[in-house]
Amino acid sequence: MSADRLRRQLEFLVEIDRLKEIERQTRIVGGGRRENTAEHSWHLAMYALVLAEHSNEDVDLFHVLTLCLVHDIVEIDAGDTFAYDVSANFDKDEREQRAAERLFGMLPADQAEYMWRLWEEYEAMETPESRFANAVDRMQPAMLNHVAGDASTWKEHGVTMPQAVKRLSPIGDGSSALWEHTQSIIDEARRNGHIADE
Amino acid sequence: MSADRLRRQLEFLVEIDRLKEIERQTRIVGGGRRENTAEHSWHLAMYALVLAEHSNEDVDLFHVLTLCLVHDIVEIDAGDTFAYDVSANFDKDEREQRAAERLFGMLPADQAEYMWRLWEEYEAMETPESRFANAVDRMQPAMLNHVAGDASTWKEHGVTMPQAVKRLSPIGDGSSALWEHTQSIIDEARRNGHIADE
Repeated sequence: MSADRLRRQLEFLVEIDRLKEIERQTRIVGGGRRENTAEHSWHLAMYALVLAEHSNEDVDLFHVLTLCLVHDIVEIDAGDTFAYDVSANFDKDEREQRAAERLFGMLPADQAEYMWRLWEEYEAMETPESRFANAVDRMQPAMLNHVAGDASTWKEHGVTMPQAVKRLSPIGDGSSALWEHTQSIIDEARRNGHIADE
Repeated sequence: MSADRLRRQLEFLVEIDRLKEIERQTRIVGGGRRENTAEHSWHLAMYALVLAEHSNEDVDLFHVLTLCLVHDIVEIDAGDTFAYDVSANFDKDEREQRAAERLFGMLPADQAEYMWRLWEEYEAMETPESRFANAVDRMQPAMLNHVAGDASTWKEHGVTMPQAVKRLSPIGDGSSALWEHTQSIIDEARRNGHIADE
């Protein structure tokens, strides 16, 4: 074990502390402020751990947890792109590619490749684990919006029914049970005027 | 799968959102504010994932991650107890027992028991996984204090060399390599007057 290897690992771990300063749109349950991406990543991992039995397919839960913990690290450079912001999503891929290169590149080569592959796998949604991680990643903010009621970011940004369904329906690819529940949340938000008809 | 089971799981996941409001003593690298326990739990899990190769014993890394993610949830009711606060640590166990009962008790019985066991295992430090999780949990704030320099909580609270060594030496039970590195951090902090001689 070279000292250089440990040094690179620790520099990476200090650098990713900055994920605690990346602000998302969603508000925490206490309501006082918006959620940051580091605490969101922990919450996601807990969603995966508690809800794993609802996955449509058998999943390696360790693998799901690593996807939840790692996939948003690129936001340190690329920022959080609000899911319903069409123009910001236009160059999201390019910004995140550059971020992955710089951030994961701080690690020893084998670990850089490992992190890079996790991030790519998450984005591609082609494995059972990435489909389930995506499902909880889309469901968690929907739950927070549900709790926020009038203060939901859906209402704040005038999100419409077709937009919400487009964003959230991939939950069903990971878990039919969680998608069914999310649909009831969407319907209630529509009834309460937090999601616009169109 | 009963609807009641999913309902209890989701109520638990909403409740633990409050971990984002539990403030620790340590400051984030940006320095603007103190760290909260939810983002700390994510950071810990990343420490475990990146530094696993330095564990003294072979560990099941999934198991380590679950310990990192779950063991601080009791702080929602019990609050964060500063590691160097002797009087607050006096009734820490009792406060955390009550918290574990209420919080994990929100889950279906099998999952409540699972979470409870993870928390107890972490505290007991009797398995390789809990020794390694404890090691990174003690090392992460030391790293943040190292980066913070003059703004370290060691200096803020007048932490002494014997106190720091007592708190941090269990890192060696999980990882000799990480303890060796932490010792160099302690020595530097002492030279710079961030840790008092006694």
